[in-house]
Amino acid sequence: MDKTIRDHGGDIYTEGQLRGRELLDFSANINPLGIPKSFKENIKSILESAVNYPDLKYREAKENIKAYLALESSKYEIILGNGAAEIIDLSLSLLKKVCIAVPSFGEYRTSALKYDIDIEYSYLKEEEEFHYDYEDILRKLHHCDGLILGNPNNPNGGIIDKKAFQPILDFCEENSKLIIIDEAFIEFTGEPNRSFLQESLQYQCLIVIRAVTKFFALPGIRFGYGITTNSKVAESIRSKQLPWNINTFAEVSLKYIFKDKEYIESTIRYVNKQKSLLTEGLRKIPFIEKVYESSGNFLLLKLKDITDEEIFESCLQRGILVRRCGNYEGLNHSFIRVAVKDRKSNDTLISLLKDIHI
Amino acid sequence: MDKTIRDHGGDIYTEGQLRGRELLDFSANINPLGIPKSFKENIKSILESAVNYPDLKYREAKENIKAYLALESSKYEIILGNGAAEIIDLSLSLLKKVCIAVPSFGEYRTSALKYDIDIEYSYLKEEEEFHYDYEDILRKLHHCDGLILGNPNNPNGGIIDKKAFQPILDFCEENSKLIIIDEAFIEFTGEPNRSFLQESLQYQCLIVIRAVTKFFALPGIRFGYGITTNSKVAESIRSKQLPWNINTFAEVSLKYIFKDKEYIESTIRYVNKQKSLLTEGLRKIPFIEKVYESSGNFLLLKLKDITDEEIFESCLQRGILVRRCGNYEGLNHSFIRVAVKDRKSNDTLISLLKDIHI
Repeated sequence: MDKTIRDHGGDIYTEGQLRGRELLDFSANINPLGIPKSFKENIKSILESAVNYPDLKYREAKENIKAYLALESSKYEIILGNGAAEIIDLSLSLLKKVCIAVPSFGEYRTSALKYDIDIEYSYLKEEEEFHYDYEDILRKLHHCDGLILGNPNNPNGGIIDKKAFQPILDFCEENSKLIIIDEAFIEFTGEPNRSFLQESLQYQCLIVIRAVTKFFALPGIRFGYGITTNSKVAESIRSKQLPWNINTFAEVSLKYIFKDKEYIESTIRYVNKQKSLLTEGLRKIPFIEKVYESSGNFLLLKLKDITDEEIFESCLQRGILVRRCGNYEGLNHSFIRVAVKDRKSNDTLISLLKDIHI
Repeated sequence: MDKTIRDHGGDIYTEGQLRGRELLDFSANINPLGIPKSFKENIKSILESAVNYPDLKYREAKENIKAYLALESSKYEIILGNGAAEIIDLSLSLLKKVCIAVPSFGEYRTSALKYDIDIEYSYLKEEEEFHYDYEDILRKLHHCDGLILGNPNNPNGGIIDKKAFQPILDFCEENSKLIIIDEAFIEFTGEPNRSFLQESLQYQCLIVIRAVTKFFALPGIRFGYGITTNSKVAESIRSKQLPWNINTFAEVSLKYIFKDKEYIESTIRYVNKQKSLLTEGLRKIPFIEKVYESSGNFLLLKLKDITDEEIFESCLQRGILVRRCGNYEGLNHSFIRVAVKDRKSNDTLISLLKDIHI
């Protein structure tokens, strides 16, 4: 199979649609409530806007982001991306040597390699429940000019311990190193204080990356954004961007989805409830040795006596796609990741796994 | 005014929507028939696809392009872009020194500067009706490794004379230089033979760039593509792209709009008819010295005794946006560009211009 495909979840095409069958996709971590009604109901007026070029400066879109995140200070700079992937990529492009906490989203590494940036990995250790090793990160930052990490982190769902992270923040601020925090899944925690948006008011070393992809169930719309109070960093990134990099559907959707409080609150309640139920169910499967605590809408599973490839194949035969983790730097073939989906789909997954006898 | 805004047409925001008024926009060259019905009618099913990540390899989208352009040979490589701007930008990034025929689309220059690429301009001369100076281009290519030019060219609407271009094609093929042909407006000619797609089967030096922006009236969808038989060039460009760079709305729309023969044929008939009428009307305006022959859906106008800024302001006061041309390399403040719009809008423009007394 093509490597680029193997690197990511959400490929319902290779084994699915292009062969004429629908797969139940547990490999992409998308809000199970689906596309917000507030978006669907306004699709006609959004569509009409597509006859115009987007605003080159995306002024309304930026105002909508500021309102959504209650960013009151004028110090905040907002950078819009064709998916969070663009902001991750361009933030990394500013570095010479980056510390990447792994296992984590494969694009951190891919982008770093693309720009010939040296990489130092800080490994999250299985024996420490895949928590960040803050001391190791700090040590490595002495010879890196930047750090990238997820909050929560994909694929394990771990979140940054702010107290333990403080020395890293101080060190980077004093030494002009860049900290890129990928918060693509942060809204699922339901706890705004987990985000580093507040800290970024004080710390110019920070850039926080968000997306509508996961939480608003719109991976197809391609929209992410970066927030920083470091205007130099913002300017450097913008200078590398194309004009009109955000499509109208993304640009205009914000005025609906960001104000959809009902959707936002239901999601947090629903996903957390389903996560508990799914975790419980999975813990009863004999070949699942461990289900990690996750602040995201996905669960990392440690397997025993079976490989990720074997589970992948068994599930695929039954029409379910799971995320093999053998290709994550810092993991091996004993892990898979599954999304938290709707109740019925989660039950289907559990029944199917129960049927696998090894 | 902000320079990035001044560089492009289509800014209905700065003076328009953001101040609560609608402008009649003659500065962006969008098909006056508007968004194809075939797209609007299928928006709901397109919308539902946005809950999934696009196909990382965009296999169906590429098949739809091949069918639309009747590209039968398997030698053709297709590269998809977040707007044609992305393909222009990445094609240019492969060069060290580029020859740009000017006046032309400002992004050629902007991208070249972004990558620190040296530029040699080949000027289209007013006294030669802004036709390409093929001999000058060939001369300059001796010390450039690539050429970029429009077919038809924006802002004048001139098209490449294939016979006169042949020596350039041969020279570039023999000397491994890259020719980037921007065909964003080619469909308006109604003459497929004007395109260099056929030539690109024989000439590996060619990359042809297309877009749905103008002809299918979808600037907001952000979709362009490059076609080449040079697999090395294709691979180099792809290696610089982000995953999922094309949004679902663009990806899925192709299966509707590219098959919409009625829209395609009506557009060509309608725009050509309106272009004749508009040209005729404009030629009667006393301060318009010349209306250039255009193969695109826009007209370049030479002014006398009045500047582009003055016309711009007069029109803006009356709710119409025209494209000032003073910031085009190779033009000056004696030129404006107007789109060919629907009959009623074109008549409004002509009446308004008649009312300007200088």
